[in-house]
This record gives sequence, C-alpha cells and structure tokens, in this order.
Amino acid sequence: MSPRDSEVIYRNNDGHVIKFNILTNETEIVLTNTTFINFNVAKYSVSPDLKYVLFAYDVKQVYRHSYMASYSIYNIHTREVWELDPPEVVNSVLQYAAWGVQGQQLIYIFENNIYYQSDVKSNSLRITSSGKEGIIFNGIADWLYEEEILQTHVAHWWSPDGERLAFLVLNDSLVPNMALPRFTGMTYPKGKQYPYPKAGQPNPAVKLYVVNLYGPTHTLELMPPETLKLREHYVTMVKWISKTKTSVRWLNRAQNISILTVCDTTTGACVTRHEESSELWLSKQNQEPVFSKDGSRFFLTVPVKQGGRGEFHHIAMFTTQFRADQNEVRHLTSGNWEVTQILAYDENTDNLYFISTEGSSRRRQLFSVKTVGLFPRRCLTCELNKAHCLYIDSDISPTNQHIILHCKGPGVPSVILHSLNNSNYYILENNSLLKAALQFKRIQMTDFRTVQMEHFDLPLKISYPPDFSESRHYGLLLIIDSAPGGQAVSERFSLGWDSVLVSSDSIIVARLDGRGSGFQGQRVLQEVHQRLGTVDVQDQIAAVEFMMKFPYIDRTRIAVFGKGYGAYMTLMMLKSTDSLFKCACAMSPVTDWKLYASAFSERYLGMPLRDDSRYQFSSVLQSVQALKEQTLMLVHGTADANIHFQHTAELVKNLVKVGANYSMQIYPDEGHFLSQQSHIHLYATLTSFYRECLKEELLPLPDEEEEEEE
Amino acid sequence: MSPRDSEVIYRNNDGHVIKFNILTNETEIVLTNTTFINFNVAKYSVSPDLKYVLFAYDVKQVYRHSYMASYSIYNIHTREVWELDPPEVVNSVLQYAAWGVQGQQLIYIFENNIYYQSDVKSNSLRITSSGKEGIIFNGIADWLYEEEILQTHVAHWWSPDGERLAFLVLNDSLVPNMALPRFTGMTYPKGKQYPYPKAGQPNPAVKLYVVNLYGPTHTLELMPPETLKLREHYVTMVKWISKTKTSVRWLNRAQNISILTVCDTTTGACVTRHEESSELWLSKQNQEPVFSKDGSRFFLTVPVKQGGRGEFHHIAMFTTQFRADQNEVRHLTSGNWEVTQILAYDENTDNLYFISTEGSSRRRQLFSVKTVGLFPRRCLTCELNKAHCLYIDSDISPTNQHIILHCKGPGVPSVILHSLNNSNYYILENNSLLKAALQFKRIQMTDFRTVQMEHFDLPLKISYPPDFSESRHYGLLLIIDSAPGGQAVSERFSLGWDSVLVSSDSIIVARLDGRGSGFQGQRVLQEVHQRLGTVDVQDQIAAVEFMMKFPYIDRTRIAVFGKGYGAYMTLMMLKSTDSLFKCACAMSPVTDWKLYASAFSERYLGMPLRDDSRYQFSSVLQSVQALKEQTLMLVHGTADANIHFQHTAELVKNLVKVGANYSMQIYPDEGHFLSQQSHIHLYATLTSFYRECLKEELLPLPDEEEEEEE
Repeated sequence: MSPRDSEVIYRNNDGHVIKFNILTNETEIVLTNTTFINFNVAKYSVSPDLKYVLFAYDVKQVYRHSYMASYSIYNIHTREVWELDPPEVVNSVLQYAAWGVQGQQLIYIFENNIYYQSDVKSNSLRITSSGKEGIIFNGIADWLYEEEILQTHVAHWWSPDGERLAFLVLNDSLVPNMALPRFTGMTYPKGKQYPYPKAGQPNPAVKLYVVNLYGPTHTLELMPPETLKLREHYVTMVKWISKTKTSVRWLNRAQNISILTVCDTTTGACVTRHEESSELWLSKQNQEPVFSKDGSRFFLTVPVKQGGRGEFHHIAMFTTQFRADQNEVRHLTSGNWEVTQILAYDENTDNLYFISTEGSSRRRQLFSVKTVGLFPRRCLTCELNKAHCLYIDSDISPTNQHIILHCKGPGVPSVILHSLNNSNYYILENNSLLKAALQFKRIQMTDFRTVQMEHFDLPLKISYPPDFSESRHYGLLLIIDSAPGGQAVSERFSLGWDSVLVSSDSIIVARLDGRGSGFQGQRVLQEVHQRLGTVDVQDQIAAVEFMMKFPYIDRTRIAVFGKGYGAYMTLMMLKSTDSLFKCACAMSPVTDWKLYASAFSERYLGMPLRDDSRYQFSSVLQSVQALKEQTLMLVHGTADANIHFQHTAELVKNLVKVGANYSMQIYPDEGHFLSQQSHIHLYATLTSFYRECLKEELLPLPDEEEEEEE
Repeated sequence: MSPRDSEVIYRNNDGHVIKFNILTNETEIVLTNTTFINFNVAKYSVSPDLKYVLFAYDVKQVYRHSYMASYSIYNIHTREVWELDPPEVVNSVLQYAAWGVQGQQLIYIFENNIYYQSDVKSNSLRITSSGKEGIIFNGIADWLYEEEILQTHVAHWWSPDGERLAFLVLNDSLVPNMALPRFTGMTYPKGKQYPYPKAGQPNPAVKLYVVNLYGPTHTLELMPPETLKLREHYVTMVKWISKTKTSVRWLNRAQNISILTVCDTTTGACVTRHEESSELWLSKQNQEPVFSKDGSRFFLTVPVKQGGRGEFHHIAMFTTQFRADQNEVRHLTSGNWEVTQILAYDENTDNLYFISTEGSSRRRQLFSVKTVGLFPRRCLTCELNKAHCLYIDSDISPTNQHIILHCKGPGVPSVILHSLNNSNYYILENNSLLKAALQFKRIQMTDFRTVQMEHFDLPLKISYPPDFSESRHYGLLLIIDSAPGGQAVSERFSLGWDSVLVSSDSIIVARLDGRGSGFQGQRVLQEVHQRLGTVDVQDQIAAVEFMMKFPYIDRTRIAVFGKGYGAYMTLMMLKSTDSLFKCACAMSPVTDWKLYASAFSERYLGMPLRDDSRYQFSSVLQSVQALKEQTLMLVHGTADANIHFQHTAELVKNLVKVGANYSMQIYPDEGHFLSQQSHIHLYATLTSFYRECLKEELLPLPDEEEEEEE
C-alpha cells in the first residue's frame, strides 16, 4: 500500500491545510491559514510529492468553471515563493495551471497553448504553438465545450504514470463570434467577442492528440471512428485506462450516435468497444467507464428497460470476447432506480463501487456489487446517520481501501472518511459552526409529495414555515431552477433566499421535478424531446393545481420564480395561464432556442430548419400578448456569456410592442454568475418582490351585514 | 419682384403640396397626396425650377438631425421617377441629398464624400474623395458637430448664385470611438462604433473649404485667423454674404474666444470683422450675422449691459470704417429683454426685422427697427390674435415683402402669411382638425408665477386640472426637461404625457426656468458656470418649496421627472433632499460629465484635470447612498448615442453596491430619440408610474371612536 493511499489532504474549517493519515491517525499541518492571507491566495494545490504548493491569486472568473489567474509556487520547507510564468513573460495571467501526477510535474496554459515543466525548477516546454485567442484552443475548452460538452474547462488528461498527456484541440475559426457589451469601468468601455455556436451554426472542430512528455516530445492524433470521421462530432469523454491506452467517447452532432473507443496512444489507433444510438438523444455522455487493469473488461451504466416503466441507467459489465469489439454484456443491477456513478472496480475482491438512487430518486447512497455469481449488492452508507445523511457523494482511494463520504444532506453537510478495511469512520468536517449558527433559528420544514399525472408520478418538494398550521392561509412560491436532466427535488441540504421567505414571511415554497427532469429513468427525461416548454410546463402548472387543493394555500397568492431554463419555463407558464400567478420573476431567461447554444438546443429540438416550427413553437417571443396582464419582473446581467442579454432584450422589445407592463433589474457588465455584491442585491430584490406580492392583504372588514348575521 | 418672392410652397393638412401666389391669390397643387403614398415618400423637396421633386424613402434616423435614406427624383410633368445613385452604385443609401439654389442643381453625400449634379440628368461629379466612415467627414457633421456645434448634420453652404459650395472637412482620426451595443434583430447582433469625444479627449480637427462648381472644379481652403490657427478650435457658423464672400465664425476649444471673419472665396483670405471673448463661455455661437449687400455693414446680437440686471443680447450694427477690421458700432436696441434672432435687413426701407422677448421672456414677437435716426422700433405681431398668438417664429421672403408667421402658442399653432406691402393676412394652416378634436376635451389650464430667489426672479409655469379648486388637495409633479440655455417656461402650445396626468388624474404640473436657463439675460444663464448641478438644482428645490406653500398642494405627494440634463438635475436633487419627493423618474440621465461630450462639458466645467474636483463635485456617482431611500425609476435606451447607456449603467452599479432599491425601464437598441412604439410604451409607463405614486391615498377611516363621538 502506497503512503498516498492512506493519506488525505484537505483544508479545514480554520483554513489550515491538513494531512491526515488514516493508518497512523496522525495529523500534520501542511500549510497554515496565515500563508493564505499573506500571499492573498484564492486557490491552492499541493504537488504530488507534497513539497510544493501552487497558489492562484487575482482570480477572475471567465465562464462557469474557467478563470484567469496569476500563479506562484511555494516551497513548503523553505517558504520560498516564485512566480509561474511562461518563458520571457512577466506578471503573466494564465488560463490554467496545475500539478501533474508525478513528483513536481507542472502544466499550464497560456494564450491557448500548453506548457509543461518536469519539475518546479526546470524550463518550460511549449507543447503546442497553434493556440490563438478565440480561434484555436489547446488543452482548454472553448465556451461550448466548457458549458455543454465537458462540464469543465480542462480539456487535457494525464496518463497514470505522467508520461503522456491527452489533449483536445478545438478549432473555432468557423464558429461565429458573439459580442458581449461593456458599459462601465472606463471612459470608453470596450466589449468582448468570443466564439459561441448558436443552434444550427458552425460548431468548433475537435481533434484529440496525445503527447509523449518523457524524452523528445512526440505528438500523435487519436483518430475518430470511421463512421464519425467525416461527420461533425464531439469528444465528450477521455479517460486513461493504462499507461498507454485511453478510452474516448465520440458523439455525433445530432447526439444520437455515440462510440466508445479504446485508443493505443503509441500508434494512434482506436478500437470501438461500445456503441449507443437512439431515436431521441443520448444522455450521460460524460460518463467515464471503469476498466479492469488489463483492459479486457469495463463497466458502464446503460439504459435498461424495466418493464412498463421504461429504461433506467444500470451497470453493464462488458467483457471482451475473441475480438476487441465484441463484448459479452452482463447487467449487474436492475430496478426502477438509477445508477448515477460507478466509482471503482476492486479486482482483488470483485467489488464494484457505485452510487445509486435505489430507494428514492431524492437520495444517493454508496453501494458495492459483486461482479461474480448472482451480483449481490450491499449498501455501504444506508445505515449511516439516517436522519442527516441520505444524499452522498464519494471519492475512493487508489487502492480502494478508503472512501471519503460527502454527506450533502438532508442535514447540515459533513465529510467523513471511511475505511473499508476496518469499517472505521473519521469525521473530517462536521460543520459545527453552521450547526451552531442554525440551532436557534427558525428553519423551514421540508416535506415531499407526489404529483400524479396520467402516466407519471412526479416528485414535489415543499418547504413550510416552522410554525405552519393547517388552519392558516399561506402564499405559495413555485421555484423552477433546473434544466432537462436536472433535479430540484432531493435530500440535499440547502438554505437560500427563498428560505427567508418561508421562515420569516410565512410563505410556502414548492419545487417540482416534472417531465424532462433526471434520475427517474429515461421515460421521464425524454418526454421533452422536440417539445421543450410544453409537457414540462404542464407539469409545473399541475404542481400548482395540486398545491391549490390544500385548504391552507391561498389561491389568490401564488407566485413563480425561474432562473435560466426555469425562467424559460416561467415565461411559458405565464403565457399559458390566466391570472394563476399573482406575480412572477424570470432571471436570465432563454426566450428563443435559436439564440441558445447549439449542443443544448439541437439535443432537444434538432438542427433548426428554415421556419422551423419546433423552434417557433418553443419560443417565448411568439404571441407575447399573453404576458401583457401579468406582473412580471425580468432580471439579467448584461454581460451574460451563457444566456445572452439578447434573450431578455428581444422579449422586452416584444413586450414594448404590445404595450405590456413589467419591471426589470439589470446587472451592468455582470455575467451569468453574478458577483457577490450583485447577489446580495439580487436576494434583497427577490425577497422584497415576493414579500410584497405574496403578503396577506388586510382587506377592510368583509361585508358587514354578513358578519352581523353570524 | 421675382415670381419666387411672392410664391410659397407648402404641404397642407390633406397631404397635398400646394403652391400659393400671394399676389394673384392663386393656388395650385404641385403634388397630390396619393403620390406620397404611391412612392412611400417620407420626405420631399421641390427643385428650385419647380419641375422636379426629390423623394426620400426608407428613412433611418441616425442622430438628432441626421438620417440615412434612399432617394428618387420625380418629374412633376411626366411623372417619370428614377433613383438617385452615385456612379456605379445601385440601391444606394445616402447620408444627405438636396437641391441646390439654382435650376436643378443637386448635391448628395455618400460614404462621407460630396457629389454634385448640375441638373437631374447630368453625371455626378465627386467633389471630395477623402471621405472615410468614422474618420473623415466631408460636408456632413460628425456626432459632435451635429449635436453640439452646428445643431444640424448639414456642414456645407451654397453661395447665393449656386456657383460655389463651402463645406467643412472634419477629421476624427484622433477622436476615440464609443461602442454602442446591439442586442436584437439578428442571431449575432453587432454593435456600432462612432467617434465621440468625451470631456478632455481629442476633438475632431476642422477645416473649411470652398469649391467652385462652374467650370473646372477648384477647391480652396479658408484659413482660420492667426490666433486660432495653431490652437484647437471649432467652426460654428458659415454664412454667405455675397457671390464670392462668406462669413465664418471660429471658436477656440475653451469656447471663450470667438472670431467672426469674412472670407474671400476666390483667394481664401479671411479678414476678422468681430471678436468676442469672455471669462466664462460665449453663447449663441451659431448666430448668423445679417450683412448689407456691399458687405460694409452687418448686424449681430451681442451681450450689452443693462444696468444692474447684467447683460442682455441686443442688436449691434457694425459699419466698416477705414479698415475692414475697424467697425463703428451702434446699438439699435436695449432693455431687460433679449433679441433672439435677426431675420433680415431691408436696405431700401432701412428696416431691420428681428424677433425678441420684449414684454416677457415667455413670448416671441416680430419687430422692425429703423437703422437710422433714433432707431425707432415697431412690433409687427403684437396686435395679432393676442389670445392665441404670443410666441412667433418667422420666415421672411427674399425681397422682404412677405413674412410667414408660425404662431406657436399659447393657442393651437397656426401658420399665417403676412404681406408687408398691404398688411394682408392669409391663413395657410389654422389646425382646425386639432382645434375640433380638443373642443370638448378637459384641457389643462396654465398659469405663470415668479419664484423669487435672493438675486433672481425665476419664471414658473403651472398646469392645473380644468376643474381645479383651491379647497381640494393636489399632487404635484415637477418636470425638468431643459438644459443650460434652454427654456421650459414659455407661451408655446404643448400637450404631452403630463397633460394627461393634469386633466385626468388631477395632478398639478410645474416647470421652472432656474439659473442656467436662457432668454433672461446673461446673468441668469451664466450662473451655472463651473457649477452644474448646484445653483440650478437649488432653484428647482425652491420652486417645489414655493409650490408647497399653496394650501391646495399635498406636501406628501410631490414627484419629479427629468430627461437628459433634467434627469441629471433630478438625481442631484434627490441626493440633496430627504423625502421631499415621493417618487422620481430620471430618463437618459447624465451621471458624470467626464462621460459626456467635450464641447458641452468643457463649456461649463472646463477641460477635466486629473482628479478634477469640479467634475467630481458635479457627478451623480459620488455618494449615492443618498439615493438609497428614494423611490426612483431609471429609463434609458441601450443604444443612446447622445447620453450613453454607460451613464445609467455606472449609476446602477453604484446603486447595487449600496443595496439601493430602484426600478428600471430599458429600451433595447433604442437611441436617445425613441421609436414611436417605444414612445407609446414610455408614456404609458410614465403616466401609470406617477398616477400610482401621486394618487390620493384613501386611508381607512380615521380612528373609529372619534367618529362615534361626532
């Protein structure tokens, strides 16, 4: 057992970086909290050999995941610090910097090119030279890959021995540029342009390379499968499965044909190991397969039909038969629940570790399943603190001996280290400060219900005031904040601006996972295919009608809030209802799918044709007269790189045309993710908007004669 | 007497273009209203020989005066139509097109170059070739010259015989570009850039040329006076005074030294005829001098001290003595009133025609003054329909025989042709349709008052509901809609969105001309020098306090509206008062003078220095905490080329920072001058905002016990 396997490094509540050894039960401070303050550190990471720390400072967020920062390297022993800069550049701002997997290997990205250092003192080696701002991206994602394809800005992957690096090259030269205006901060503010493929527009072209870092650098392209070579496609996943082999998933632009290959990085040849296709779209395309050491076996979740309830994602074990592209497939799990993640395969014990929704789609528990015999499975966390720990995320150590459990709800989150050897638990973080802070607060109560539609049972989460009484009347706020495949109804802990309305203003908050939502099987998810904004909107309305049946809900005081996709649904709901809602707020709404990202819009609505009726039908901008009589507030950052301010501007233009009344809050030069200051303002704006809208109107006493009769 | 002198061409209420001969009393239809509809004509003009009409269609407004359009030429006799296009261009969109002064002379401007045609069928001659979009402007103004210097986009001037054309060449290559974003109308909206010199930034360089159009074209530069040659300067006025001589006014950048020259366009030599300088700034720099035929005498209004009341603009007659730059000066008028315009000099009768505010700064009447003897003057319009005609604008015929009187108020506007020969009046337009429409409407009543400040009596205009009663209580709306030098209190007829509030919602509307306003002498005007937003703001507050003394004003229901400079004042007022106003709306506000146009900001505040305290002190953006508790609505078009959306964005950013509440209405991609549709929406927004804010609150009946006692 390597020393690393029993060590965990984390930053504790005091701000110290701690090394904890689970075997010796020893704790050591790697970095004190004062170091962070002294060097104004925003992010840090410790080198694989635990001798150095990489500090990021002056961090500026770019998109959801990406950020620009300056970096310095800190010698833990000598406390020496120096800047990380590309050759002949000073005070550089980098797009990325991180340790590799061995010793002091360093990689960083500057001006869309990858740089490599074999150790902290060695010279930088420029791995690529084609990088060009907004055109060629090496090892780092463009906007589309970051937001919609990889769900990270990191587009490179280390081989386990640190000898090779796989990386994407994205060519955005044909992708049209979107302009983000700028209004403030200088006398002549200049906007920004960046490639953003809207529905039907040219996409970035992708190529996958592997570079050999030991000895003379040698770069090789990994070739896509024949069927996709000449067609537009995405690379959605890269995972090394040995020192020289990597698995790669290729997806056609229509997102209904997916090919999982294993590529030999010494030759560049890729062999297909699994294919998926669908008449609708393929989900979970980021999923990493888990391979056996020799590569002859791998595990993947695939949709499996479960009787009349449609397909659910379950673990399939693929074992190579005579030829590499011929597998024997065994299904290790089944049932009306989903496997959300396969964590690890322990070949010594024939155990596969995974997380699933077994028991309830709201929950996540860690399970193991034997890969032999009758595939018996065991829940490893179901008995763990049942009241507070029903939603678990997990990291497993390299040798599968130890597990870090992130217990994310329903109680205050905690982090627990669990040894699979001796079944011991070590609490790394119990959030005692938060717990203490909440102890004497009026905290909302949560209840879960089911809204029954003709063919679907849809989960509903309701937050009640702490002093809820069935005999009182309450205003209702419906919150819609998830997109297709997402989940709003879960056991995850959360306290948001809406919690204030529940606790302090006696408002009931409801969230529904309607058709299109995730983790309840493919049938629920895929209902929105080619009909965004229809069935999902119907379900949200049904949820309101469900709530209205309760005598304690005041039918005249119902409001809705939506953000992003939820704001889209909010507007579609307002258009299809008549005075159901007393007021509504749509924040950063999509108002026309033709103006949103190709990979998203096309997944659900296909390539837009000329006068495309699906796109037209799903647009908020059609017949906005229906919005005229609603009390609507629009909120948007003017520099939103994800859902462009364009969406709100087009809506406002149409609202002005029909003479509609509405109110508005813009955040100048703010993006999709607001600054902290703007968030504070937003929360104040939202709470006062809904407080005002949903407050109980103290009417002058009703008809006096009636009263006298009583 | 030329036939043209007794003819007037105008478009009547039915949409026909009419030629009326005052001598024969004959009327002829030049163009029927159907022609306008058939050719989709937006603007028209008839050729000097009355044979052709120039039609403009597809008109797109650019800035306040300028517009892009396509043009066609219509033969009145044959009804033939053809397009006006530069050589080898089809479907051209021109920046300008107009007839010259003789026959069928045509001039047009395309891509910043001037083109000339000697008649409708001849080939186009390109007069300039240096034109370059956003860089070099020939014969047409850039934004600054259009909005702040010339008050028109036309930057060329015909000699009276049509043989020569004077034109400005503006070089904006050093002027920084401002970006106007675009949000709507296409998948990837592209913004626009244009040169806009903000305070202290490089200004356009100006040169004045004259081109000889008969025979081989020859272009000559008219040279600025020596004292301004090497200093930054503006050309503020060009007026031909004979076939070969033109008068030109040159103004230094600081706007406190002005030189009026007469230039010989055959040599390019300019001779100084008059100089003005001031320790403050010089006003009325567009004023055209009126010259005698031989050029030896000219008339100009100049500030003349009138005892303790400071300087007022009065007519000075300059007569050349021995040398051209030595004048004998005689003052033809004097008094506590201003001459606003000199119209014409009739050398035969020694009459000078002018318009002045004599009697009241609210009024405009046409006068004549003898240029000989004791300069007796006579009012020509004072007896004309006294109830309806107190504000007159006027055009005089070439031989000074006939006058068109535009009677702009206080009654419904009318246009009257007046013969100076026989004193006959002919009504060209009496607005009978509007009169009839208003006959049975509840129309506001207007009253004028004087607010007495320590050293100034400031005029106040008050609009009362038609059923006003002193025993009732009314909400008050203060409207601030004029900039320094402007006038809000006059006898001009107007019916606006605020009239609805007065008539239908029983709100009293007030407008004050405070310090900084025009037409009341230099002392009132120049009070704002180096202190924009201080004394003018104090005066508006004084006006509110003046109104509050009336028992019929409800002190708890006072609101303010301001637009442009008025919005700036509105915000400054809100900052310096505490709950005086129940609500306020600032539309297209200037919030920092460093971000506004050089020629305007520098006129009042000088060139901004580093950490300029005058600029900082006059900025709305300083200490916005004071705005936190106000009920404020902000309105702005996002593509405002005049007062950039930047002003509102900077304010909003600061308001968000201090957690202030406010509401907002943006008009996406609309400029400083809203489209008709947006105007309708704006008026609905404003009326409902102030209606809601100023409505009488019907409180629940006061203490019931008291009631029982009664």
